[in-house]
Amino acid sequence: MSVDRSYLKVGETVSGQSFEVSVLHIKGSNANAPKVYIQSSMHGAELQGNAVIYQLLQHFEKHAPLGDITIVPHCNPMGGNHKVGEYTQGRFDPVTGNNWNRNYHHPDRTWINKFAEQHLNATKAEIIQAFKSDWLKQLEAALAEPWKLSRGHLMSYRLQTLATQADIVLDLHTGSKAARYLYAPRYAEDSVHYFHQEFVLLMDNQFGGALDEASFCPWLCLEEALIALGHPEAKRPDFESFTVELGTQEQIDFDSAELTANGILSYLAFKHVIAAQWLNPPEIERHIVPSANLVSFYAPMGGLYRFIKQPGDIVKAGEVFAQCLRVAEHGQSDTLIDIEAPFDGYIVNAFDSAAIPMGIELVKLMRVHR
Amino acid sequence: MSVDRSYLKVGETVSGQSFEVSVLHIKGSNANAPKVYIQSSMHGAELQGNAVIYQLLQHFEKHAPLGDITIVPHCNPMGGNHKVGEYTQGRFDPVTGNNWNRNYHHPDRTWINKFAEQHLNATKAEIIQAFKSDWLKQLEAALAEPWKLSRGHLMSYRLQTLATQADIVLDLHTGSKAARYLYAPRYAEDSVHYFHQEFVLLMDNQFGGALDEASFCPWLCLEEALIALGHPEAKRPDFESFTVELGTQEQIDFDSAELTANGILSYLAFKHVIAAQWLNPPEIERHIVPSANLVSFYAPMGGLYRFIKQPGDIVKAGEVFAQCLRVAEHGQSDTLIDIEAPFDGYIVNAFDSAAIPMGIELVKLMRVHR
Amino acid sequence: MSVDRSYLKVGETVSGQSFEVSVLHIKGSNANAPKVYIQSSMHGAELQGNAVIYQLLQHFEKHAPLGDITIVPHCNPMGGNHKVGEYTQGRFDPVTGNNWNRNYHHPDRTWINKFAEQHLNATKAEIIQAFKSDWLKQLEAALAEPWKLSRGHLMSYRLQTLATQADIVLDLHTGSKAARYLYAPRYAEDSVHYFHQEFVLLMDNQFGGALDEASFCPWLCLEEALIALGHPEAKRPDFESFTVELGTQEQIDFDSAELTANGILSYLAFKHVIAAQWLNPPEIERHIVPSANLVSFYAPMGGLYRFIKQPGDIVKAGEVFAQCLRVAEHGQSDTLIDIEAPFDGYIVNAFDSAAIPMGIELVKLMRVHR
Amino acid sequence: MSVDRSYLKVGETVSGQSFEVSVLHIKGSNANAPKVYIQSSMHGAELQGNAVIYQLLQHFEKHAPLGDITIVPHCNPMGGNHKVGEYTQGRFDPVTGNNWNRNYHHPDRTWINKFAEQHLNATKAEIIQAFKSDWLKQLEAALAEPWKLSRGHLMSYRLQTLATQADIVLDLHTGSKAARYLYAPRYAEDSVHYFHQEFVLLMDNQFGGALDEASFCPWLCLEEALIALGHPEAKRPDFESFTVELGTQEQIDFDSAELTANGILSYLAFKHVIAAQWLNPPEIERHIVPSANLVSFYAPMGGLYRFIKQPGDIVKAGEVFAQCLRVAEHGQSDTLIDIEAPFDGYIVNAFDSAAIPMGIELVKLMRVHR
Repeated sequence: MSVDRSYLKVGETVSGQSFEVSVLHIKGSNANAPKVYIQSSMHGAELQGNAVIYQLLQHFEKHAPLGDITIVPHCNPMGGNHKVGEYTQGRFDPVTGNNWNRNYHHPDRTWINKFAEQHLNATKAEIIQAFKSDWLKQLEAALAEPWKLSRGHLMSYRLQTLATQADIVLDLHTGSKAARYLYAPRYAEDSVHYFHQEFVLLMDNQFGGALDEASFCPWLCLEEALIALGHPEAKRPDFESFTVELGTQEQIDFDSAELTANGILSYLAFKHVIAAQWLNPPEIERHIVPSANLVSFYAPMGGLYRFIKQPGDIVKAGEVFAQCLRVAEHGQSDTLIDIEAPFDGYIVNAFDSAAIPMGIELVKLMRVHR
Repeated sequence: MSVDRSYLKVGETVSGQSFEVSVLHIKGSNANAPKVYIQSSMHGAELQGNAVIYQLLQHFEKHAPLGDITIVPHCNPMGGNHKVGEYTQGRFDPVTGNNWNRNYHHPDRTWINKFAEQHLNATKAEIIQAFKSDWLKQLEAALAEPWKLSRGHLMSYRLQTLATQADIVLDLHTGSKAARYLYAPRYAEDSVHYFHQEFVLLMDNQFGGALDEASFCPWLCLEEALIALGHPEAKRPDFESFTVELGTQEQIDFDSAELTANGILSYLAFKHVIAAQWLNPPEIERHIVPSANLVSFYAPMGGLYRFIKQPGDIVKAGEVFAQCLRVAEHGQSDTLIDIEAPFDGYIVNAFDSAAIPMGIELVKLMRVHR
Repeated sequence: MSVDRSYLKVGETVSGQSFEVSVLHIKGSNANAPKVYIQSSMHGAELQGNAVIYQLLQHFEKHAPLGDITIVPHCNPMGGNHKVGEYTQGRFDPVTGNNWNRNYHHPDRTWINKFAEQHLNATKAEIIQAFKSDWLKQLEAALAEPWKLSRGHLMSYRLQTLATQADIVLDLHTGSKAARYLYAPRYAEDSVHYFHQEFVLLMDNQFGGALDEASFCPWLCLEEALIALGHPEAKRPDFESFTVELGTQEQIDFDSAELTANGILSYLAFKHVIAAQWLNPPEIERHIVPSANLVSFYAPMGGLYRFIKQPGDIVKAGEVFAQCLRVAEHGQSDTLIDIEAPFDGYIVNAFDSAAIPMGIELVKLMRVHR
Repeated sequence: MSVDRSYLKVGETVSGQSFEVSVLHIKGSNANAPKVYIQSSMHGAELQGNAVIYQLLQHFEKHAPLGDITIVPHCNPMGGNHKVGEYTQGRFDPVTGNNWNRNYHHPDRTWINKFAEQHLNATKAEIIQAFKSDWLKQLEAALAEPWKLSRGHLMSYRLQTLATQADIVLDLHTGSKAARYLYAPRYAEDSVHYFHQEFVLLMDNQFGGALDEASFCPWLCLEEALIALGHPEAKRPDFESFTVELGTQEQIDFDSAELTANGILSYLAFKHVIAAQWLNPPEIERHIVPSANLVSFYAPMGGLYRFIKQPGDIVKAGEVFAQCLRVAEHGQSDTLIDIEAPFDGYIVNAFDSAAIPMGIELVKLMRVHR
């Protein structure tokens, strides 16, 4: 099985050179099988997706998939190469502060409703085909007027021309110092049991700019419009997209990558993208909650923090999960201060530096109870 | 006339020390005169407000105002001291990318409606008093739970405890390389003729997180609720707030500061905060449009830009207002490329470095026609 | 035992406020015992020294020392609070790129020679007293002409006014992802056996700007001058200074801090700064080599690196100690490339992000053989 | 006259892609005429060199040169694209703080002396040829062991393989907010009268890492060695190199570029690289001093600075050349403080942001008297 490569231009430098990303293409053996789009590292410090892609490529080279698979490993050269000190400030555009993962295109809802009306007599397959095609045209039209596009939008739209052609989209991310978790559309809850992700956040039809939302929300809007109009085949989108959070940033971990890759392969087998023999859902405990259950806990004081509890751990309301050391305040206020959880929850993500000014997100807590 | 000073804590460092800002208090001679709150440099590179404050202080020391005036010159020590190379990256939190000027508190609209119902029989003066008081309590309640507040919110809420007590709020900003312009609530259009700001953007009741909006939108919501309930005194808010854009960032210009300060004093005289003798509206041409007329024009290619037209200039659709130099592309594509205006408009703001990657905002154009 | 605190001004912000650091003073019971100066976190991301100081303070509160001890925990507020993304870019001045730990004052060698001549008939105690006093005067004279001092020098000189009064100076640092190691003057090799530092780098009389060198080199110059002039008491300096590298940056680790603190206490007991009962040299294997044996190994290609060997491990020439993953190059060049050690050595320090452009220091290798 | 282009690889990204720079080649009509190497923007914010190159290219296209000319416009893609906020932090490697212009290769002096001995009987032309050839081999040998090279060295050595083959090297830089000035080897003082640079700093044989020094110092060392050995043709190097400081950073100014380009062309005519008709030395007053006369004046307090005097102006000892505004200190200390020149001198360079912490270089003063 060979992997083809092409290059996609996603921006231009100050000297007029192109920022280009490598796109890997794996041809499936069955033209009718679902097509998959995978990208990694839109946030520049979130590297682990590339290790997962390495595992997937090894698999695909030995076992050709049924469906076409398109992979963009380091999809954001502007974020990925913005190092400051040892680390990568790749979460937001260093010029503007705009989060790199908030710039995708969602077709206008009014337009979607109109599209549904116009295609009421078409079959579902025809509708899917036409919707993808029109959506792609919208992206191309937007890209033809670059003066209206920020560089985040420009890059995202270019990548989205690839994603829009797929039936499944996986956007590989990581947290700071984090557990493995998954953002999934609520309607795709069945699918989450095939991934190797211990924590699952279910999302409703709310678009905030990220690729997973930009990918599934339009299909959900279309389904809703078709249902409202009484289209007989409309139930839930055939399309699925996920943000797969692979653990801790700024590192690659081959053991974890193997687990995650096997989970992804299991999901792809479930969706008939690869042969059924790879369907082997990881037997792990999953904590599945609405995405609103993920709550930011900001450092209530400035200092150096040590964690008593780690990402993946559960904490009870009132339980000390971290301590704040303030040696310079010795004698004036307490030097080591306990930080207590405000409610029962799992620590899903923790700040990856001990030096934390007041008001910076210390942890993300996944509330157990609503 | 003396100026008193106090300190306001707006954050904490990683060693547990306080970030404190200097608050200047000028006592007015008339307890019934409107109170004014002025702050500068929430965006760290936007320095000119401090030069304007210097002019105002010189005035107030000679001519005591009628109303109390509270001034916070360098209101954001975290943004103002974040230098990278020679310049100040003070527009967004360097940790998160969050724009420092998007974090103010707007009371919940449902709560405002309920407040209006409960105060239907009160006089306007009583309502204003109660509304300010309740709003302040909301800020204090939020500040009492720091784990829920990002450091941008924490700082903004602290400053807002001062702003909320005023009748007039002026937030002093600058553009990049920019003309003098003004964001004003649409209902306060009469007031804009007292300022020395050539370009005026009128805002509706839409809250995006900035101080001017956070200051006037709640009053507008309250008025709307009172009008809907038929309160006899409800017409338009007594309260006014403005973002005053003072020109170019990273510099202080005393000549421009004097013009702007005189405009502000003229406005304050109009509002009876200072004696009527200072009412002397600058005789300048003003371009007043809805804020939606301000449009970003992104660099359509990466390169080095030189401006043919400058901030303040008008450009016609199709007119060349800048050129893009790409010497490294010599022989492959054009080396000097004309950039044309997409519509008739004023250049209000221009990027302050010639080195511009594709997709970075080259200028802000103020559309002449809708 | 109480700890007193004072504040030392080390700079000024753009609004004219002082940058102040907290100085902790512990009074010794014996005025003749050696005085100690300890500082931490000149490089802002190197936090662990504060955890060690926390351990030391707990000890001193229970067991008063014989000699005076002065501690500056977070000694560099400008570097310590310069966060970019989650991490602290605290290694160099973000305005100039100047390493924060290269700015200390070393009295001019010609002046030292002259001083030796002038004090040839004085006792060693008198000489030490006079040398400290004159050195301090030089610092004060330099600080009196601020226009000649960069802010790195300004801060360093201020701190050095404290260090110069001590007999022992400990500068607490960390590596990136690192083993515990120690920079020691070659003449103080006896002392290294009391610290809990597995790797030791011996330094000659070569001043590069760091605090340890700035502290011991002048004394060594003085001794050399006195020996050359035949002063009977001149053998080796009574003064000692060390840079103590405490492991990995951006974290605090209380277990490691306890080990290191016990090592420091053991050394202080050896030097009669605290009671003899705390003399308890850690029984660890120490690798002691000249500082020139520490060699930078730069990433020979750009990619994502995973380490087969860890800080503290030994590697043989030709042994694979890391691998470079380049998924985007899949099909064009090898995707996973072995990185081999060029000689036998210990990995003492490793880059703390897996994303490494070509030419960035991958590891510091401590050469086993010359 | 056509301009050919090739690409030179100067580094690798974190995904393994090459950083490549565009190299422009203009073939001269006379193989014996001196060869010229020109590069621009090693410091990423110093853009004006590209505008000068644009002028030079226009000239060369109309009037083919006698000697070969090699031009690298944007020579540092890593520095040039490191934007933070609007500006370019391109002066130092953002990972390490290392100044991008301190990494060139200077052959070892011992080796040069040995080379001179071995070539004592060769003609000057043969010596020059052999010296260039051996130097180039040293660069290639170093580049063959990338693990020993930081990315600054790697890039500089690659560029230097081009520079080493030339007889004249021009490195185009700018100051912050600056006058036009020139660094020249003292032995090449005759040449400075052809450039359009008002201020000239003469350099001795002292290598600090910059390209101009790395280019002429080895030739000076060689001359000295040949003179010491009594070679009959040894007087002064035929080779010349200059750092041409083109004014203010972060901008391109075509008027200034035309002046500077004409100066460069005049110099090239003087050196017989282009036809004699272009010899037309600019009639400007030049201030020529030893490079040690350029003195840094650091901000003696933190605040906002306005300049009374501008780059290019002369100031007398005690004359106020700037004022420091500290509104936040109003009432506590003076709010507007005069800054006086410590000696007679020209302001050659000024900080390009008004927001200046204590200890940051406010201006560079060129001392009039020794």
